[in-house]
Amino acid sequence: MGILAIGSIAFDKVKTPFGSREEVLGGSVTYFSLAASHFVPVSIVAVVGEDFPESEVAFLQGRGIDTSALQRKKGKTFRWEGEYEVNINIRRTLATHLNVFADFSPQVLEQHRSLECLFLGNIDPDLQQTVLRQMKRPKIVACDTMNYWIEGKPESLRRTLSLIDILIVNDEEARQIAGEINLVKAAKKILALGPKNLVIKRGEFGALMFDGDSVFSAPGFPMENVVDPTGAGDSFAGGFMGSLATAESVNEDALRRAIIYGSAIASFSICDFGPYHLGKLTSAEINNRYNEFYRLTRFDSL
Amino acid sequence: MGILAIGSIAFDKVKTPFGSREEVLGGSVTYFSLAASHFVPVSIVAVVGEDFPESEVAFLQGRGIDTSALQRKKGKTFRWEGEYEVNINIRRTLATHLNVFADFSPQVLEQHRSLECLFLGNIDPDLQQTVLRQMKRPKIVACDTMNYWIEGKPESLRRTLSLIDILIVNDEEARQIAGEINLVKAAKKILALGPKNLVIKRGEFGALMFDGDSVFSAPGFPMENVVDPTGAGDSFAGGFMGSLATAESVNEDALRRAIIYGSAIASFSICDFGPYHLGKLTSAEINNRYNEFYRLTRFDSL
Repeated sequence: MGILAIGSIAFDKVKTPFGSREEVLGGSVTYFSLAASHFVPVSIVAVVGEDFPESEVAFLQGRGIDTSALQRKKGKTFRWEGEYEVNINIRRTLATHLNVFADFSPQVLEQHRSLECLFLGNIDPDLQQTVLRQMKRPKIVACDTMNYWIEGKPESLRRTLSLIDILIVNDEEARQIAGEINLVKAAKKILALGPKNLVIKRGEFGALMFDGDSVFSAPGFPMENVVDPTGAGDSFAGGFMGSLATAESVNEDALRRAIIYGSAIASFSICDFGPYHLGKLTSAEINNRYNEFYRLTRFDSL
Repeated sequence: MGILAIGSIAFDKVKTPFGSREEVLGGSVTYFSLAASHFVPVSIVAVVGEDFPESEVAFLQGRGIDTSALQRKKGKTFRWEGEYEVNINIRRTLATHLNVFADFSPQVLEQHRSLECLFLGNIDPDLQQTVLRQMKRPKIVACDTMNYWIEGKPESLRRTLSLIDILIVNDEEARQIAGEINLVKAAKKILALGPKNLVIKRGEFGALMFDGDSVFSAPGFPMENVVDPTGAGDSFAGGFMGSLATAESVNEDALRRAIIYGSAIASFSICDFGPYHLGKLTSAEINNRYNEFYRLTRFDSL
């Protein structure tokens, strides 16, 4: 199944204990699509400014990513600036300049309306619904969101949640949506709002998936060299959706496998600055990491 | 194999979002021995004051715990007071009155010197070595420690680490011992100091075990009702050592199984105030929880 992904493209300024970079290609749909492109064809809907180099478009296309719905608008591309503490799991956002992303109006092209997997990145939930309405009924619809929309547009976000299959958020976002600190209780409340599955990203601590009464816990991969965690969550979502899109049926086994593939890709994404090394991964490397996750978690049944 | 465990017995004053209790039986060796008693015979070395009721001794004995080396000294039993935030994973210690525990001098009785498993709870590393010297060479020696000794007696702690098989600490303690934030790097440094295995407790996020080049990651059990996390780490250690003491050989499979049993017992220990419900657990409940951990973590190999 092919994936249509909506989200941001940005240039990031990043400082971590291991160095700093400016004007690095970033944004949610960048990491998502590069991760997913290792599994299935991906088309993106996004917007960049006049300053966005053709070489970056060519980089995405080189991974087979369909950029035909990439809009180029007057003005500058989205800029984000962040800094990580010595404990690299703690991040501070220093600046956000939405630029052309502020007026992003995602348009689904005719040739993308029949795609079977849709990923609604973290944008205004009104826009998420607009995109969904432009699609023929896709088989899998997943979405992300953030505190800005949870606080600012709770009613619209609830409408989005009632229309999707899988919500992929981090632990703080899950708690905030549900108004509940305990994650198991929060998950029950969120599943009651519509999604069939809830995937909770926990950074270095891995991911939890709630699927009806079943819960799946995947660890973060114990990494010796974490250079830049930027984009890890989006890479996770891309690997997850990419793997799921290859499944014959979206059952529990396929969902769990997808969580591990998402975790595997995320573990690679944090090894260096920017998204370029994500493009160079081989299937063998990804499958080796999957197997390492298997060895990391195995124990005998009784 | 029988276990000899050294540690504290206390009365706790605890406040959590779900209530508060005063003069609740607590202390590291209390939780440890109750957890381990579900697997093998346990003997404890500890000290209490004149105020310690016979009924509490009888409670431990009722679980088959050998209290023949329990010292009763002039003065009051150790008191600890703590408070948990609304996010119940965050704890503040409000008061520590060591009382008779301040001058604790653990004496190993003749009948305990040949026990094959030794757990050196969190006491002065000099005393840990004193205890170890009183034993005939046991097959498994595990130990715990805390920031107070890591900062205050680093040289003595290193000597203890050079003599033991398994170090069981939490993530902050592991980082502090190694002087290294990254847990994988910290683990390598700690294993270079002597222990064959390092078990890192991460509270709600489970546990990591480093065993040579192999790493095992166990999740925390996703709990809907956490009432009081006091004693969870000691219960984990008790379940871990108890399970390990039943193994025919201390190999990787046995160590991983022990981590899951420790996690299972810890998940029960946080469901209520105090240690009394730990005593009432049945084998069937513990094995059911083990199986739930199995279902929580299963995914297909490639």
